Amino acid sequence: MSKITVSGPPARATIRTVAEDAGVSVAAVSKVLRGAYGVSDGLREKVEASIGRLGYRPSVAARGMRGRTWTVGVLLIDIANPFLSLVVEGANSRLQASRYKALIGVGHSASEIETGLIESMIDYRMDGILLVAPRSDGPTLEAIGEQIPVVTIAHHQPDAARFDTVNSDDRVGARLAVRGMLERGHRDIAFVFYTHSGDERTAVATQRKEGYLAAMAEAGLSDRARVLRVEGGGNIAPRDEGFDALLDLPDRPRAMVVWSDMHAVPLLNRARMRGIDVPGELAITGYDNTPVAALPLIGLSSVDQDPARIGEMAVNRLLERIEGRRAPSHDFVPPAFVPRSSH
Amino acid sequence: MSKITVSGPPARATIRTVAEDAGVSVAAVSKVLRGAYGVSDGLREKVEASIGRLGYRPSVAARGMRGRTWTVGVLLIDIANPFLSLVVEGANSRLQASRYKALIGVGHSASEIETGLIESMIDYRMDGILLVAPRSDGPTLEAIGEQIPVVTIAHHQPDAARFDTVNSDDRVGARLAVRGMLERGHRDIAFVFYTHSGDERTAVATQRKEGYLAAMAEAGLSDRARVLRVEGGGNIAPRDEGFDALLDLPDRPRAMVVWSDMHAVPLLNRARMRGIDVPGELAITGYDNTPVAALPLIGLSSVDQDPARIGEMAVNRLLERIEGRRAPSHDFVPPAFVPRSSH
Repeated sequence: MSKITVSGPPARATIRTVAEDAGVSVAAVSKVLRGAYGVSDGLREKVEASIGRLGYRPSVAARGMRGRTWTVGVLLIDIANPFLSLVVEGANSRLQASRYKALIGVGHSASEIETGLIESMIDYRMDGILLVAPRSDGPTLEAIGEQIPVVTIAHHQPDAARFDTVNSDDRVGARLAVRGMLERGHRDIAFVFYTHSGDERTAVATQRKEGYLAAMAEAGLSDRARVLRVEGGGNIAPRDEGFDALLDLPDRPRAMVVWSDMHAVPLLNRARMRGIDVPGELAITGYDNTPVAALPLIGLSSVDQDPARIGEMAVNRLLERIEGRRAPSHDFVPPAFVPRSSH
Repeated sequence: MSKITVSGPPARATIRTVAEDAGVSVAAVSKVLRGAYGVSDGLREKVEASIGRLGYRPSVAARGMRGRTWTVGVLLIDIANPFLSLVVEGANSRLQASRYKALIGVGHSASEIETGLIESMIDYRMDGILLVAPRSDGPTLEAIGEQIPVVTIAHHQPDAARFDTVNSDDRVGARLAVRGMLERGHRDIAFVFYTHSGDERTAVATQRKEGYLAAMAEAGLSDRARVLRVEGGGNIAPRDEGFDALLDLPDRPRAMVVWSDMHAVPLLNRARMRGIDVPGELAITGYDNTPVAALPLIGLSSVDQDPARIGEMAVNRLLERIEGRRAPSHDFVPPAFVPRSSH
């Protein structure tokens, strides 16, 4: 106990440190972990006490030895987001074709709730986790990926080593939206971004902004590129104040490529209610191709991410990981532009 | 093995039949169930084998002895239904104020998927289950309520003995919608119902139909009451064929009280796209007051069920059951009519 402790996070507990702490062999800890036959009550209690004290979580490999629960955890940032609901439906359809069931936790855009749910999923010995638009940062996700097979959706981290990512190709999607504007003769095209509360580098909206800037540069319109911001919000409810500020800009752009239908639908609504002709005076495109966009009374041009395909591919990658793949995989699903009357 | 087996379901396994099968005392089975100190490996294995063979699930009371997992299961019929998402948000907010977490399973309107998920939740030793618009029938739900604390939402079964129900007062809601029509001078008011694939007696739509019929009778309009049906469907995507049949009726009613915004929004959309003046030629009200209804471009009058309150009350009832209440409770949350421009 006279060892000097270096400040910083404690070293991660391993099967070896658990064995040392309990004063037993690594083989004995392993037997307890897989619930092997012939483990005495005394040994089990000693090992479980050390596991609790050290906060040890068995590695993916050790977990595999204990057999499967045939359950996959899905962590969803927000249950009211219609695009994410379609992703989860796609994942569920794919899982139903296998033996797996999904149990979903809702993170409410808060990383501490998210972390608590992920810990529960690990404690319940789920076989893998799908993280849909997670708020946790890269290092946290890498640490989770060490403990359990993980695939993220709508989280851009192409250098992630311990988990897979599946994304819509958000840069391409934004370029398609800009191209749609160019084809209808627009040049004064702005991008409507939002105030993101998490890590902007991994956010889908950032990728779309980059795609917009690249498309403007390609068209020789870099000097006219503008990024406007509106305040947060996660549903299509009207939020008139923020949109009025956009609509009242003295140099209001002629066209707006909006990062998501969540903002494009109420913006379109507000513009029309104020008597602004869409698309005559203001062209608008959205992103997500939500069912509301497709209602002819709304008629919002939008980018379709193919959510069912995203959910299905993420489950395929997760099942591969559960089967033992360790090398990371980073997939992009191609998006498509759906032109309607709003641009 | 010479016993004559009477056909029919096998008698439910109890702690006593498990003890007989394992050849041990009831007290010994109970010790294994609560993970008590000093249980030998041999005894535990014998009892667990009998439990598996007989399909025994410990009763709620026996489960309580083993301590809590602080997890509540939520079974949701459909993740893409915006009203149900708001109910789950309300439930989650209430749970976050307690020590509990929620894990959600999606039943996809199929009772066999639903049953599999409920079994997983019981196997995971969740402390209780919220069933949101379940497809399972009354006897099945009573059997589940014997094994684990259960509260249903959007399932009308006022004589349920082993679980609680929390509902919007759907009869009152439909009467409010009819009253809204009467106040604007309409008399030729029909109710738009849908083809329900489950038990109509427990469905919210049936209660709304009854409320409509009662309100028409009160207004002396029983002879003009009409119930029209449209084909299923669980989101607001346009389904023009079914709606065209309604709109093309030779004696099309002057006003339609639609059982849900899921049908009222695309019906309103289709009517306007066909040049039918809403409300001038056709008045429409919906039910659920979804965010889309509130968009001024849609402007659908609707009944608000207060989904956040429903979710919160259901969690309160579930926590009471987890704390030991056994007498059934059947609550109704009062709805409110939200008039807009569509009626």
